[in-house]
Amino acid sequence: MVQSVAFIGLGAMGYRMASHLPKHFDTVYVWNRNMDKAKQHAATYGTQAVDLTQAVQADIIFSCLPTSADVEHLINSVQLKSGSIWVDCTSGVPDSARKLATQLKTENIDFLDAPVSGQTIGADNATLTVMVGGDQAAFERALPAIQAFGKLIKHVGTSGAGFAVKAVNNMLLAVNLWSVAEGFTTLKAHGVNLTEAMDCINASSGKSGVTETVLPQRILNRSFPVTFGLPLLAKDTGIALDLVRDANLPAPVIALVQSLIQAASLTAEENSDFSAAIKMYESWSKITLE
Amino acid sequence: MVQSVAFIGLGAMGYRMASHLPKHFDTVYVWNRNMDKAKQHAATYGTQAVDLTQAVQADIIFSCLPTSADVEHLINSVQLKSGSIWVDCTSGVPDSARKLATQLKTENIDFLDAPVSGQTIGADNATLTVMVGGDQAAFERALPAIQAFGKLIKHVGTSGAGFAVKAVNNMLLAVNLWSVAEGFTTLKAHGVNLTEAMDCINASSGKSGVTETVLPQRILNRSFPVTFGLPLLAKDTGIALDLVRDANLPAPVIALVQSLIQAASLTAEENSDFSAAIKMYESWSKITLE
Amino acid sequence: MVQSVAFIGLGAMGYRMASHLPKHFDTVYVWNRNMDKAKQHAATYGTQAVDLTQAVQADIIFSCLPTSADVEHLINSVQLKSGSIWVDCTSGVPDSARKLATQLKTENIDFLDAPVSGQTIGADNATLTVMVGGDQAAFERALPAIQAFGKLIKHVGTSGAGFAVKAVNNMLLAVNLWSVAEGFTTLKAHGVNLTEAMDCINASSGKSGVTETVLPQRILNRSFPVTFGLPLLAKDTGIALDLVRDANLPAPVIALVQSLIQAASLTAEENSDFSAAIKMYESWSKITLE
Amino acid sequence: MVQSVAFIGLGAMGYRMASHLPKHFDTVYVWNRNMDKAKQHAATYGTQAVDLTQAVQADIIFSCLPTSADVEHLINSVQLKSGSIWVDCTSGVPDSARKLATQLKTENIDFLDAPVSGQTIGADNATLTVMVGGDQAAFERALPAIQAFGKLIKHVGTSGAGFAVKAVNNMLLAVNLWSVAEGFTTLKAHGVNLTEAMDCINASSGKSGVTETVLPQRILNRSFPVTFGLPLLAKDTGIALDLVRDANLPAPVIALVQSLIQAASLTAEENSDFSAAIKMYESWSKITLE
Repeated sequence: MVQSVAFIGLGAMGYRMASHLPKHFDTVYVWNRNMDKAKQHAATYGTQAVDLTQAVQADIIFSCLPTSADVEHLINSVQLKSGSIWVDCTSGVPDSARKLATQLKTENIDFLDAPVSGQTIGADNATLTVMVGGDQAAFERALPAIQAFGKLIKHVGTSGAGFAVKAVNNMLLAVNLWSVAEGFTTLKAHGVNLTEAMDCINASSGKSGVTETVLPQRILNRSFPVTFGLPLLAKDTGIALDLVRDANLPAPVIALVQSLIQAASLTAEENSDFSAAIKMYESWSKITLE
Repeated sequence: MVQSVAFIGLGAMGYRMASHLPKHFDTVYVWNRNMDKAKQHAATYGTQAVDLTQAVQADIIFSCLPTSADVEHLINSVQLKSGSIWVDCTSGVPDSARKLATQLKTENIDFLDAPVSGQTIGADNATLTVMVGGDQAAFERALPAIQAFGKLIKHVGTSGAGFAVKAVNNMLLAVNLWSVAEGFTTLKAHGVNLTEAMDCINASSGKSGVTETVLPQRILNRSFPVTFGLPLLAKDTGIALDLVRDANLPAPVIALVQSLIQAASLTAEENSDFSAAIKMYESWSKITLE
Repeated sequence: MVQSVAFIGLGAMGYRMASHLPKHFDTVYVWNRNMDKAKQHAATYGTQAVDLTQAVQADIIFSCLPTSADVEHLINSVQLKSGSIWVDCTSGVPDSARKLATQLKTENIDFLDAPVSGQTIGADNATLTVMVGGDQAAFERALPAIQAFGKLIKHVGTSGAGFAVKAVNNMLLAVNLWSVAEGFTTLKAHGVNLTEAMDCINASSGKSGVTETVLPQRILNRSFPVTFGLPLLAKDTGIALDLVRDANLPAPVIALVQSLIQAASLTAEENSDFSAAIKMYESWSKITLE
Repeated sequence: MVQSVAFIGLGAMGYRMASHLPKHFDTVYVWNRNMDKAKQHAATYGTQAVDLTQAVQADIIFSCLPTSADVEHLINSVQLKSGSIWVDCTSGVPDSARKLATQLKTENIDFLDAPVSGQTIGADNATLTVMVGGDQAAFERALPAIQAFGKLIKHVGTSGAGFAVKAVNNMLLAVNLWSVAEGFTTLKAHGVNLTEAMDCINASSGKSGVTETVLPQRILNRSFPVTFGLPLLAKDTGIALDLVRDANLPAPVIALVQSLIQAASLTAEENSDFSAAIKMYESWSKITLE
């Protein structure tokens, strides 16, 4: 029986995700490297800002950190409670998930990789998609807690499977982002009205999340709001390429797009949104997508 | 005032598109290289199966043929009527549209490139998307006739713009098709449940027409129904690459995917659906997407 | 019997190539858009600076211009002499060669596409490589004149074949240039001594004209001497890609490298040597090859 | 003072490399998994076929095995002698070299990564190129022994640098192999004489080890002699791509070619030479390079 939950890492996503937990659990610990944020969260949502040692005594511990390296570092710095479940919502590395799951199993702790998608608005509305890898029984035990912020919640496979799906999702996002930039630049070079073209494509077989959402809401209006940083997209495409390499697969398009996104990330202004990757392409073509 | 319309080319799409015209026009000519099909159309829908010389005397002449070369050949073999509009629904070549528009203008005839998307079901239901290039006034005159089979109908630019949007749409379809094959093969190699992964991605930022429709309805069920041939997709990606070259743009992803789809088309079985392009990838990876 | 020869286009290559003709022919006309250069040539080498009308009355007319479009324009502006041979040393477009050969044949004139390689030093020393497309008999008649500046002279096929070989050669140069940049940047990122690495590779299977010559003489010494402009390399890779497209071939590496070189050309400083294409890569990697 | 040397791994390369050691050293141990080969070597060249325990007591131990994993396994299964040097001529993984160097350092043993190029003929003639990574002093101590089979011997950097240079060399070989296949197929599709074209390119800027040697000696004569297996080339291109990833670099051409070679390896007949990678391309284009 889950008595207590904790949420570690109160970034743009974590802060919002954790806000829903008090509706379902009496004891909700929150911890953040910068404790002011945790205290603010406690004051706003009725959670308890505690130190890390206490937070990890919860029955279910959620984490949402920048990288798997951060999660590993944190887990290796504390003593967890036997029988607990660590649910890591980071967009992490499948190999790391397997390693942590194996390591924690020896202490009778389950580790689930459970990355989310749906952006901050999905976190606000508790409508995130959660793709979970790890032990089936642990998934079922953790499910009610995950439902606090998730809507579509899928057990996609053993440890690492959740991270793998997230990496592939973000790779497909990257592929679409770049190819839409190429395609719409080509149309603009030929004098085509981009808004009308977008409307047509969004009613046709070439549509994607990028043509439906990213193109109108971030690119054509030149807003590039920083909700998901370009370096994180570059990291995720790298995870996808590593999955390809681990399986000894050829994957020419993934490989090419990973390079292009990596180049875009290396040359972008600090603190760029992922959608700003197209600015590298604009610098080549001298054509602005607007 | 439009008194008569004609439809030339009664293939899988044209046959259905022409079926709606008698609801809006008293005189509807149809013509097809194989006249039996035209006669069957006339018997079924109340159109008139006529010879080509008569068909092209209509006020508005629709065509829907395999390639722009077919359209050019046909137009150059007949005498059109001054004041008429030729609306070409072929997935054609922008340069050809510009050439025909210029040539026909000297005879006081308008040429609109008006390719469609929405597949046979959209043609059945008169809900096609139509992307139109050419003269604005001609577009407005032809619009009521196009509405017989189209739902979203957009004037996207001058001559060739319609063909350009269609080519870019189909290029994006090809990019998605190939990258989804790479991504889902990678997931399968890592033991991920593909159906659950697909559901997650379809609720996330990496979704596309391919993940929503092509993957479940054509690939994972191994049906590959032949509704849009792979050689036609290869042709369309070639048109997109030619647009890139004409504008002296770099476009690495379009260029790569065009090569891959071309290779897939050259090595595919005869009469393969576009979705069967992934079989070349499966032959590399020895992993079947099912 | 060849009595007179002419050389049209006294650029960096043509000026030097034409300098060898008086050693073999009594009458050598030269023409250049800027006639001062022609007069200087005449004064220096004993050629005759004449107007274009007279130049094209030679038995063999060489041309060496920036593009095939320039050659077409020039040929269409003059009246040639029946029985003469036009030997075009431009790095041109195969389709243009075929068109000109067909057109001139009606006037009993042969057109040979005969691009050269070997750079200005090869032109100085009359040791150029000449790859010739066109009629075999015309090739044999023109051969003694070509030998004035060429050393390895090959009849590689019918009209356009010479241009095709040159385009593929320059494409391979571009592929090597870019991949060497990637490879040596990777080595530098891992702390490898680039000069020692280059020496090893130049004694191994990965060597190329780029590792042997371009890397040490243009890149590692940061000289980038402008002897062959980057826009011309971009043009030639475009010709190679067009050859691929014309033959309906897939060619993923050619397609990708064409895009990268095109992007490098669009973003390079004015008047950049072809070897400066790697500077775009350096801007991505923040690593300088030196 | 070096009193004894050993050579571990008597494959096609190692067998020949070890044959030169008795000319320079009194005590030369050889060891091979299949000891018959070692005994044959001893009988032929005057080396001593010993068991592994004894072999690793030499002052300098050479190894030449299929992969770094084999070397690690072997080193971890024996007890080495303080003060000795292990010179690994495998085409290995830089990370593995660093790990082994660090590990052996604690036992006062030096590890040099020293892959070779020059094929069996270079091994026969003791004219191999050797690219060495590791400690400078250890390099100098090992140099006289390496000179037994090497001609150009370079210290290219710290541990792993030798493997890195070899991986990049083989990647450049792969890039050239594939792009030459694309380029010459394009020429053949346009009716160009391939032998004449090759001669021209070999006198021009697009030449490479592939156009000079691989194309005439393995491909155009359709011999594909199995001297360096395609799976090994695929492995080496993978090592190169991993170096790119480790350094967080973009490298689109390396990434693409790695995928293509990997696909070619996965689809090739068993026991194919590296040059047979082009057969995958021939299956796309339906054009045979001959």
